[in-house]
Amino acid sequence: MSQTYPSLTPLHPQPTTLHVTRWMLGPVVLSRTPLTPRPPPPSSSPDEASNGNDPWSVWNQDATGGSSNNWAAQPEGTVTGKSAAPDPWGSNTQGHPQAYQGPDIYPYPYIIDFSGAEDDEWDDEWDDVKSNSESGEGGAIQRGGATGSSMKISLNKFPGFSKSGPELFLLCKLPPKGKEKLTIYMGEVGPVWSYPEAQLDCVVADPKKGSKMYGLKSYIEYQVIPNTTNRPVNHRYKHFDWLYERLLDKFGSAIPIPSLPDKQVTGRFEEEFIKMRMERLQGWMTRMCRHPVVSNSDVFQLFLTFKDEKDWKTGKRKAEKDEGVGVMIFSSIEPEGPDLDPIEVEQKCEQFSRFTKAMDDGVKDLLNVGQEHWKRCTGPLPKEYQRIGKAFQNLSSVFTSSGYQGEATLTDAMNEAGKTYEEIAQMVAEQPRKDLHFLMETNNEYKGLLGCFPDTIGVHKAAIEKVKEGDRLVAASKITAQDKATMAKRVSTMSYALQAEMNHFHSNRIYDYNRVMQLYLEEQVKFYETIAEKLRQAHSQFTTM
Amino acid sequence: MSQTYPSLTPLHPQPTTLHVTRWMLGPVVLSRTPLTPRPPPPSSSPDEASNGNDPWSVWNQDATGGSSNNWAAQPEGTVTGKSAAPDPWGSNTQGHPQAYQGPDIYPYPYIIDFSGAEDDEWDDEWDDVKSNSESGEGGAIQRGGATGSSMKISLNKFPGFSKSGPELFLLCKLPPKGKEKLTIYMGEVGPVWSYPEAQLDCVVADPKKGSKMYGLKSYIEYQVIPNTTNRPVNHRYKHFDWLYERLLDKFGSAIPIPSLPDKQVTGRFEEEFIKMRMERLQGWMTRMCRHPVVSNSDVFQLFLTFKDEKDWKTGKRKAEKDEGVGVMIFSSIEPEGPDLDPIEVEQKCEQFSRFTKAMDDGVKDLLNVGQEHWKRCTGPLPKEYQRIGKAFQNLSSVFTSSGYQGEATLTDAMNEAGKTYEEIAQMVAEQPRKDLHFLMETNNEYKGLLGCFPDTIGVHKAAIEKVKEGDRLVAASKITAQDKATMAKRVSTMSYALQAEMNHFHSNRIYDYNRVMQLYLEEQVKFYETIAEKLRQAHSQFTTM
Repeated sequence: MSQTYPSLTPLHPQPTTLHVTRWMLGPVVLSRTPLTPRPPPPSSSPDEASNGNDPWSVWNQDATGGSSNNWAAQPEGTVTGKSAAPDPWGSNTQGHPQAYQGPDIYPYPYIIDFSGAEDDEWDDEWDDVKSNSESGEGGAIQRGGATGSSMKISLNKFPGFSKSGPELFLLCKLPPKGKEKLTIYMGEVGPVWSYPEAQLDCVVADPKKGSKMYGLKSYIEYQVIPNTTNRPVNHRYKHFDWLYERLLDKFGSAIPIPSLPDKQVTGRFEEEFIKMRMERLQGWMTRMCRHPVVSNSDVFQLFLTFKDEKDWKTGKRKAEKDEGVGVMIFSSIEPEGPDLDPIEVEQKCEQFSRFTKAMDDGVKDLLNVGQEHWKRCTGPLPKEYQRIGKAFQNLSSVFTSSGYQGEATLTDAMNEAGKTYEEIAQMVAEQPRKDLHFLMETNNEYKGLLGCFPDTIGVHKAAIEKVKEGDRLVAASKITAQDKATMAKRVSTMSYALQAEMNHFHSNRIYDYNRVMQLYLEEQVKFYETIAEKLRQAHSQFTTM
Repeated sequence: MSQTYPSLTPLHPQPTTLHVTRWMLGPVVLSRTPLTPRPPPPSSSPDEASNGNDPWSVWNQDATGGSSNNWAAQPEGTVTGKSAAPDPWGSNTQGHPQAYQGPDIYPYPYIIDFSGAEDDEWDDEWDDVKSNSESGEGGAIQRGGATGSSMKISLNKFPGFSKSGPELFLLCKLPPKGKEKLTIYMGEVGPVWSYPEAQLDCVVADPKKGSKMYGLKSYIEYQVIPNTTNRPVNHRYKHFDWLYERLLDKFGSAIPIPSLPDKQVTGRFEEEFIKMRMERLQGWMTRMCRHPVVSNSDVFQLFLTFKDEKDWKTGKRKAEKDEGVGVMIFSSIEPEGPDLDPIEVEQKCEQFSRFTKAMDDGVKDLLNVGQEHWKRCTGPLPKEYQRIGKAFQNLSSVFTSSGYQGEATLTDAMNEAGKTYEEIAQMVAEQPRKDLHFLMETNNEYKGLLGCFPDTIGVHKAAIEKVKEGDRLVAASKITAQDKATMAKRVSTMSYALQAEMNHFHSNRIYDYNRVMQLYLEEQVKFYETIAEKLRQAHSQFTTM
């Protein structure tokens, strides 16, 4: 299965004003499980609000909020086709081959060492000659600054940068909209993206170790099988990383592009690590497939359906030369609706800002208590149940030594009760992988997604400010009155995009939370029912005197 | 209800060789709940063993083993008649008016301050002139030495004391056996006490505050209602204490007399304290009622059925003058079986020693883990469930603010799920009072009972040693050959008593553990079933997409 790909160069975004990818580098985003049923299309219109405050400026000062905690897996029974994929790792997690393997193998992967921004020798060496996309300071900050706080610093280091982006779009001569036209319709809920008839999906499976340079270097590659062609293509992590960079460059100003799963958690070739990375890559791909704009893009289609190395190379070079990146994505957008008043634009912006901030707080709160609960359930609690079980069995054993006749029923029953509590200990320790894991995962993913919004919203705020400055700029002959009207029209287009994206977000959020809450409660019910049944069985061993 | 009793003097055992009560001052014993069904009579014969080692000499060096942790209460549904007694304290523990009130009011009452051996001004002032039974040094040590370790010290301070006891009985001219004859029969399990046809039981209820000396002193008195007369008598704590001293004096050499519940835990007139003391007194009385020898004794019958103050005073004086105390109890014992060989006596002694030591270890182990579990279940665990519940409700509230239409089903369901976890938090915190409490209680009681055995066994060991010395004593003309034969016969009688007591212990142990394990598991099943049902209900609120 091992296969060497053609020249792949780390294409960090260049430190020019053309790129807005820095804005998008919020906290790393969790990818999630593939979704069989399609999330319902957005169907209602967001309220309007009228508050002009800054989006939460302290967002990224919450250091924990920005760490690269990418992890994803598939809840049992919710995987489409994936469960049929071969599992070369022979997991012993009964019935949950893709569940998080628990703290015995990895501690709850909350804080991940991301100190080295550079790729390491195992997985991140680039096979071929570097392309001409130099990795300048801005790029380095971007890659290394996967935490929200460092991203904030990088923004502060380039004052005006975030404004130059929207300015570029607001005043530029628009290129003709070609194949790339992104229509925004008015749905029941307001502006919505154009959703495809059939939803794209893919399976990431079958990780295999390969080597090159006469075995000096080894790597893992994964099969990616889109549901459109059913034909597997092979990709290494660095190819996913290349795709991520392309999507970030191209769509990042308008669409939150969740970061890839982090590069390294622990031993590179440990089975568990590979399995976890695969699950996270699966989750990331699934979320990208769910997005109507991303999934329909040339670069994404190339990644999923390239025919051979030549095809891949050609497509790769084309993608790297794409000029419709950064804020210029807005030039492809065509709203099917009247221009919005700048005041309405500002209101929407504020509303989204407040909501995403509030949701971010709620999600972090749940993550915090979930992490504590995880620790307790996998640590002291089962140990205690085990000790209770041992104590019952020990007492039973002592009773057996009494020499007093006729207490076998009691001692047998006490022994059984003891074993039952040992079984309960085991169940308690394993349960978080079956339910809490997925609750954590979903919330962690949303934490990452929400972390992208302050920057997205920042672009809009900057654009709004530019339009507000319009009169002064016209008076100072910096722009013409026509320019000002154009800016207002374009900021309206940006707002359509933001609203469409928010509606996409809401629609997916409702779907995801409904599903994960159901899964969680279902598993919790099973858990408590099983314990009750075991105890009922243990109870029946005692005689009624 | 307040009533002043006639002269009651603290009758500490006098520091003479006649008293063996020091031997009995093992760790304080827990009294237990009243038992409706009668424990089965002993029905099998203990094994014989042939090891001559000392009973566990380090027993009392385990300081925690000897602390006065008397506490008892009635498991729900197992109280005879008691639940019909009025509860003037209006407890808010739903459905468990007599369950331990939890750490919010009392911390798990494990380590109790027993620093003051003297009675305090509230409850322990003696109403009347002190009797002529002076409380000498030995008595003071006895009362103050309620912990095992201090008792050991008191024994060490009087070397030879523990030998003088059995010696007294082994060589004395036996008084004629009168009404007090204690027959030991050979049952299926070996020697057994003579059990009465109907088991005595009593209810301790209706604690009332009284006062005297024009209100300067106040106290609590309890109604005690025996099932034989159904006529209530009133007793203050100090009367129970007087009874305890009498029983200890009279039977302590042969029968473990569990200590009373400790004098003071916390605020004297707090409702919870009084209720808890009442429960513990109930448990103590129940265990005394269950013992065929104790329950049939004059002093115990006096306590339960005295007709008036005159009757009480007369009986009290008579009891205090009783000379059949200490090791002389053995002179009342009449085994219906052949004399035992001293080797067999020693083997039995060793066997009981090993068993009680092993059970003591097992019980302490269970108590330790139970205490930890109690802390967790009433502390951090429910807090965590509450936080999870709050986090769900908070997220639901944030979602409601999205302005996106059609998510009311989700937000309502999440809110309900959150409330469910808050309910679970409450259930988790309250559960230990419903099950773990009784498990702890039973084991704590047995810890106390087991703590009495090293001393009981010590008396036997001393007697066995005396018999072993027989030949030398005869040669030295200290005793006659007839004396030696008498000693062997009398040590055989002592062994019958020990065996009868062990069989009584085993019989009660089997009954108690069978019952408490059933109760524990029953309540645990209910607990987990209720949680599962609540979660099932919460789950049903979500829509299947």
